[in-house]
Amino acid sequence: MSQAIYYHAGCPVCVEAERALLPLLDTGKTRVEVVHLGEQAPRIAEAEKAGVKSVPALVIDGQVLHLNFGAAIADLK
Amino acid sequence: MSQAIYYHAGCPVCVEAERALLPLLDTGKTRVEVVHLGEQAPRIAEAEKAGVKSVPALVIDGQVLHLNFGAAIADLK
Repeated sequence: MSQAIYYHAGCPVCVEAERALLPLLDTGKTRVEVVHLGEQAPRIAEAEKAGVKSVPALVIDGQVLHLNFGAAIADLK
Repeated sequence: MSQAIYYHAGCPVCVEAERALLPLLDTGKTRVEVVHLGEQAPRIAEAEKAGVKSVPALVIDGQVLHLNFGAAIADLK
């Protein structure tokens, strides 16, 4: 099973991307954790280490997919 | 069933994103068409009309998700 983490910050772009994409992921193949970096600031470092430069982003088995552009990670600190 | 179109141009970023994401989509919920804009230039106009600014991009039921950045649409013309 793939591990995916969806990092977002509650921004409109984040919400739109989440609504479009997450329901289409095969839950039998993928476990998706949703992380709101605005509410879980300690996990910003984890996201940065994974290569996340902006939100929303989906990290799939360690590979980062930036989805459109909502906010830079630097602006969440 | 959702309709999704994955626009790409064969670039490394495009291939990586496709490999990471497309296998995780629930094929029971989503029909994904893969379009190589380098080989199907007439469809560039269609992608632009949908709001695609760069590839790779996934258009889900009319909503555009740009995935990282491989190449600008303008550079494919």
